[in-house]
Amino acid sequence: MPLVRAFAFDAYGTLFDVHSVIEACRAVTDDPQGFSLQWRQKQLEYTWLRALMGRYEDFWAVTEAALRFTLRRFNLAVSESVARQLMDAYLTLAPFPEVRGTLDRLKTYPLAILSNGSPNMLEAVVRANVLTGYFSHLLSVDAVKSYKPSPAVYELGPSALGLPAREICFVSANAWDAAGAKASGYTVAWCNRAGAAMDELGFTPDVEIRSLDQLPPALGI
Amino acid sequence: MPLVRAFAFDAYGTLFDVHSVIEACRAVTDDPQGFSLQWRQKQLEYTWLRALMGRYEDFWAVTEAALRFTLRRFNLAVSESVARQLMDAYLTLAPFPEVRGTLDRLKTYPLAILSNGSPNMLEAVVRANVLTGYFSHLLSVDAVKSYKPSPAVYELGPSALGLPAREICFVSANAWDAAGAKASGYTVAWCNRAGAAMDELGFTPDVEIRSLDQLPPALGI
Repeated sequence: MPLVRAFAFDAYGTLFDVHSVIEACRAVTDDPQGFSLQWRQKQLEYTWLRALMGRYEDFWAVTEAALRFTLRRFNLAVSESVARQLMDAYLTLAPFPEVRGTLDRLKTYPLAILSNGSPNMLEAVVRANVLTGYFSHLLSVDAVKSYKPSPAVYELGPSALGLPAREICFVSANAWDAAGAKASGYTVAWCNRAGAAMDELGFTPDVEIRSLDQLPPALGI
Repeated sequence: MPLVRAFAFDAYGTLFDVHSVIEACRAVTDDPQGFSLQWRQKQLEYTWLRALMGRYEDFWAVTEAALRFTLRRFNLAVSESVARQLMDAYLTLAPFPEVRGTLDRLKTYPLAILSNGSPNMLEAVVRANVLTGYFSHLLSVDAVKSYKPSPAVYELGPSALGLPAREICFVSANAWDAAGAKASGYTVAWCNRAGAAMDELGFTPDVEIRSLDQLPPALGI
């Protein structure tokens, strides 16, 4: 394994639990978990589809579009203010329980977030969870107007951190994101929280862990 | 509505029922429908992800990769020959019941297929169903080494048919494909077989039908 000199974390699903919106969804449906899963799936699909169409809109707009789809799919009509509450839940997503402890363990390294999120969304969720001090960079795809797993996105890490990709450990809970980062030369840790099957995209992460606290021992640091 | 002078059909899900592989799946699992849905979802995801990564492999390879993922996800180990039987089901997918009648109604127009499928896959499924004579062109994304909804793919239609996109009616059962074609200027018919919600990608089809036999009357022809 190459010497790791910095870390770049995916945000949604890796540091922050997207399904912490379930509580907010409870206000509109008696299947908040199904609603949240559908919303998340469409949110991801729309990032891939818009990037491929060459029709970038930022992650806030895409998340809103995925919410509109999900409301129609669930035959729900909600007021503007309720829709706003659902969206606002994204600005205060809870971190997974082991996040702060892991960041404390790694705080002697430069730490970045490299995310689909818009700059405003990333700043808000990091600030809401009082994690600002840990990160030297909040890197958003918005800088290149595309989405993961476009190589242009992953190039933001080496460029901002001033290190070759292989010396940056990219950490994601999303298998396809781990594959995309590996294709761009990072050292990659896949945080396989759900015990899922790795995606078959021709790239294998260097390390597989089940939660972020396993990261330092997996890297021998 | 612009005057329509030709038709370009999506293949999988539109002319041919991808879930006719369910019979073949029955040989490996007691949840053949769930298996087939997972296989199809991953197949689509891998087209989007590989196109975005700039790591094109043809649709046969992507379909095989999605099958490998699905077998692992379902904790199934199968022999090479069983895997081959599952794959071969893609070469003989059944058309939806109204396909032949609709093609007969439209056969005075130039008719094309514009599909993610590899040239071999398209030729095989069209030949297996004795539909070869209806189509002037079998257009595969393989010509541009990308996947729908990349604009490069949709440009294949006007180029091959020698018509502006708005004079070609693009027909797809996949909402995101309908949106992609609309973004490229086609007249678009969305064959919403499942009564689904339209995707929120900023583009609306010109016509929505529930099965292909509704296409000629919807266009007034």
